[in-house]
Amino acid sequence: MLTLKRLDLMDAQAVIAGARAEAEQIGVPMCIAVTDESGNLLAFERMDGGKIPSVTIAIDKSYTAAGIRKGTHQLGEGAQPDKPVYGIFATVGGRMITIAGGLPIEVDGEIVGAIGVSSGTPTQDREVAQAGIDALLNT
Amino acid sequence: MLTLKRLDLMDAQAVIAGARAEAEQIGVPMCIAVTDESGNLLAFERMDGGKIPSVTIAIDKSYTAAGIRKGTHQLGEGAQPDKPVYGIFATVGGRMITIAGGLPIEVDGEIVGAIGVSSGTPTQDREVAQAGIDALLNT
Amino acid sequence: MLTLKRLDLMDAQAVIAGARAEAEQIGVPMCIAVTDESGNLLAFERMDGGKIPSVTIAIDKSYTAAGIRKGTHQLGEGAQPDKPVYGIFATVGGRMITIAGGLPIEVDGEIVGAIGVSSGTPTQDREVAQAGIDALLNT
Amino acid sequence: MLTLKRLDLMDAQAVIAGARAEAEQIGVPMCIAVTDESGNLLAFERMDGGKIPSVTIAIDKSYTAAGIRKGTHQLGEGAQPDKPVYGIFATVGGRMITIAGGLPIEVDGEIVGAIGVSSGTPTQDREVAQAGIDALLNT
Repeated sequence: MLTLKRLDLMDAQAVIAGARAEAEQIGVPMCIAVTDESGNLLAFERMDGGKIPSVTIAIDKSYTAAGIRKGTHQLGEGAQPDKPVYGIFATVGGRMITIAGGLPIEVDGEIVGAIGVSSGTPTQDREVAQAGIDALLNT
Repeated sequence: MLTLKRLDLMDAQAVIAGARAEAEQIGVPMCIAVTDESGNLLAFERMDGGKIPSVTIAIDKSYTAAGIRKGTHQLGEGAQPDKPVYGIFATVGGRMITIAGGLPIEVDGEIVGAIGVSSGTPTQDREVAQAGIDALLNT
Repeated sequence: MLTLKRLDLMDAQAVIAGARAEAEQIGVPMCIAVTDESGNLLAFERMDGGKIPSVTIAIDKSYTAAGIRKGTHQLGEGAQPDKPVYGIFATVGGRMITIAGGLPIEVDGEIVGAIGVSSGTPTQDREVAQAGIDALLNT
Repeated sequence: MLTLKRLDLMDAQAVIAGARAEAEQIGVPMCIAVTDESGNLLAFERMDGGKIPSVTIAIDKSYTAAGIRKGTHQLGEGAQPDKPVYGIFATVGGRMITIAGGLPIEVDGEIVGAIGVSSGTPTQDREVAQAGIDALLNT
């Protein structure tokens, strides 16, 4: 039998609140998703002005980051033409996102969930995702 | 040109908080989704202990209720064998839910969004969904 | 943070071996799937003569039983016309199975995974699924 | 009338055991799938620590390799921009995998099944897949 740790809802709310605060700070309304370590959705918010396709993209960024235990921007590097995982963006029904903005959440060396952010530039999305994680870890 | 009203994120949070309070009251951890009037997700929470398939079912109950502008339990009545919309549960990729727990949110005679709840019995799901709406309307 | 238990691969292999032994005993080649507590596949076998659609059905029975924390036959009872969850078989992309043969696996009061069996009659499928669980619990 | 050869379950188990041994050797927990010559799943294992998206990707690598009767890395070469099968990664619902780790299994000049491995680097995945085939052929 395995024993594992997973974000609870309060943790997920802390992550979302931290990400939302950063999104407000930079003035970009975002879709923000938090999944557990298995990639299943725990909490989600679309800020007023967040984009509709970003609902799915934020959820799938979080799914991807939980699944690969790395940032989606790192997957994007390997998915370029002639790189090892080229084409991975089309796998798992298109849920594997190769765009920055998905980050795994690690606590005590264990991946316990992930966050995915979408609606801004990928750089903004990633920055907001990181702010969400920082908010949790600073609690 | 159309002018329409739509829940904002604060409204959606009020709906979810009201539903969560009722779920805690009856001791059933729920998945709670709020969509806008177009059926696109605004906010979501999976309470600790909420069920994994209910992530999708809660979101789709809310989608359905926003879409048909009625409760999903009412769609269920019409979807029985020999009834007019028999088979509708399989349409739209299976997103049309015929089980209680999805309710439209009406403000000033206009549907401005919907809530979907899943993880309990359909009766509990509907009760918790109604509590979410009541919380918003009593604000 | 939540702490939870999950079947490991050796546990899953024990469940499959127990189910396979029973399937051989009754002379019905089966598809046998074991998922973790979140419904993600851990192990699978199609015995020689197992049916092709049963590959998916066995996996989805296991997903369903893990998700609802009950047997799929119990979901089937509630999914009949005029019953509370009528139509649930079409939700989650058709993954919610209302046919006997999916059972949750409970250890020390916690659902740690599930088994799904398909290719025989639903009664046979359920019997083989139960044999898989018994094999694990008797280890 | 056609007569064809196909892996039986014992063959598939031998392939998986060989792959698992290699995965343990290199210290990378893998998802390992074996399909028959028609691309339908015969056996699957997710080693403890194998990745969730890799459940689907391993199965689809095996499906792809059985289908094209070549390694998925070879499909990847042809799928690059300006190459003949550019875009194939998006076909068949995203099931055509262009990443190394899927290999057909050939016995007496006939493709009798395939193996797909995922969770490591593509190079590791392919090496583990090859080890599974070698284990079968050396039996």
